[in-house]
Amino acid sequence: MKLLVVGSVAFDAIETPFGKTNKILGGAATYIGLAASLMNVKSGIVSVVGGDFPQQYLDLLESRGVNNDGIEIVKDGKTFFWSGKYHNDLNSRDTLVTEVNVLEHFDPKIPQSMEDAEVLLLGNLHPGVQLSVLEKMKKRPKLVILDTMNFWMDTAWDALMQMVAKTDVITINDEEARQLSGEYSLVKAAKKIHDMGPDFVIIKKGEHGALLFHEDRIFAIPAMPLEEVFDPTGAGDTFAGGFAAYLVKKEEFDFETMKSALIVGSALASFTVEKFGTERLQEITEGELIARIKQFKDLTTFEVEV
Amino acid sequence: MKLLVVGSVAFDAIETPFGKTNKILGGAATYIGLAASLMNVKSGIVSVVGGDFPQQYLDLLESRGVNNDGIEIVKDGKTFFWSGKYHNDLNSRDTLVTEVNVLEHFDPKIPQSMEDAEVLLLGNLHPGVQLSVLEKMKKRPKLVILDTMNFWMDTAWDALMQMVAKTDVITINDEEARQLSGEYSLVKAAKKIHDMGPDFVIIKKGEHGALLFHEDRIFAIPAMPLEEVFDPTGAGDTFAGGFAAYLVKKEEFDFETMKSALIVGSALASFTVEKFGTERLQEITEGELIARIKQFKDLTTFEVEV
Repeated sequence: MKLLVVGSVAFDAIETPFGKTNKILGGAATYIGLAASLMNVKSGIVSVVGGDFPQQYLDLLESRGVNNDGIEIVKDGKTFFWSGKYHNDLNSRDTLVTEVNVLEHFDPKIPQSMEDAEVLLLGNLHPGVQLSVLEKMKKRPKLVILDTMNFWMDTAWDALMQMVAKTDVITINDEEARQLSGEYSLVKAAKKIHDMGPDFVIIKKGEHGALLFHEDRIFAIPAMPLEEVFDPTGAGDTFAGGFAAYLVKKEEFDFETMKSALIVGSALASFTVEKFGTERLQEITEGELIARIKQFKDLTTFEVEV
Repeated sequence: MKLLVVGSVAFDAIETPFGKTNKILGGAATYIGLAASLMNVKSGIVSVVGGDFPQQYLDLLESRGVNNDGIEIVKDGKTFFWSGKYHNDLNSRDTLVTEVNVLEHFDPKIPQSMEDAEVLLLGNLHPGVQLSVLEKMKKRPKLVILDTMNFWMDTAWDALMQMVAKTDVITINDEEARQLSGEYSLVKAAKKIHDMGPDFVIIKKGEHGALLFHEDRIFAIPAMPLEEVFDPTGAGDTFAGGFAAYLVKKEEFDFETMKSALIVGSALASFTVEKFGTERLQEITEGELIARIKQFKDLTTFEVEV
């Protein structure tokens, strides 16, 4: 099985209470690809960058086994750039700069080698672009995973509804789930979102963990309690990447496998926030990942006899 | 083993988006006592009410096996009364009325039969009153559990610090843990609170569950995802009552037993919010409780193999 990822490959400049970076490697598809590489699954990215994008970053993805044939380089264009500053609690941030650049006219091209990918992860982009990717696939992937955000609810509702209708698994944060459904209760929100299309609804709650809804079943995990969050950038994308890659690895899309995938995604995301950008994600060893998953088990396992 | 509970026995008038009540039975010790009765442990309440407090409420506690010899009745006084109105999201509320009444000069008297209780649960009251109860015990209980709130941090810091220093288990919500410790990270906050005295720190996060800290170990549970929260009043007290009663029942105060106790407390609290006041708590059957605990198990159990 193969995982096709569509999303931004970009520059970020990040400021947190602990320091700041210059322009560094960023973008949803980058985090997703690096996370997927830790599961040793075949993956490829469809994206676009400018002539200013360093070859070393493309080489980095390649060296991790992430197929970058689908990353178009617009020689006379500039790469998407985002800059943000986190507040002291690390839970909120101000966007300082958003230069959309080459992403503005992004027309995704799927390399032939990835046209038959069984799992498609549509990273946060305009839903019209996400739809176009789905249409360009040789056949409908076995599993379509959608990440989106409130911005598209405000600006591209109809296209978003079309995209959501064709989605198997949606990942969304709690506030966005409330906005999308018009329901405050997350249980009710998940039901309404089910009715829009997705069989599986994942609601991300940041430091409070995540919920997975499927039919009448619910799975809930806390986030790993961390002494310090250094930089939250990319945590959600890392989560999505680890989640999708685990499913590809197991070649199973049932509720039990999704539960495990949620743990893998959360474990990887808990590393990402320990350093700036993709730095920590690039270092993770298999041993560290296994240890972190065991920590999740210890964190949540109990026996009760009343 | 016996559980001694100190806290308010009171009248509440509650308004939620779903309706409103007249003056009904309320108070921290009431919820705690009713929760403890579901564990079939010996318990008793130390509190004070006015001449206006109905005998039927005292009988109710008695009939559940909650010793009410320690509930002083001030014939010419009025019972503590709180009235509040919840906002639409049920996560915040406005206090409409607080009549402290007989609680203002509350001088706790411990009945002889409860002077040797092994577990003492000090419900949310002025820390000076909490300290006086501890001093009046025949000997130091094996386990002292403290519930407190931000109000006492603002108004009685020194007494609170003395009380916290004599506490084994503290239960506190996330914002209060941050205020008490001056740390935003809950892991760091728990460490600082450990240093103030308590071996076990429980941080309650409402709809996001709870965390238990002990030495370098952490246990995390989500809250039971509910379609509808009808009335959150008393959820925290129910949690504390179920938690303490489970420890009394098991006669064990180690980390593993505390984990189980956290689940029992959460399961009971998830019932309390389903109806107004103590209504649902009074109805719970043993079968329902066992089923709810199994739901917690299903909600949180996973297997991962990477």
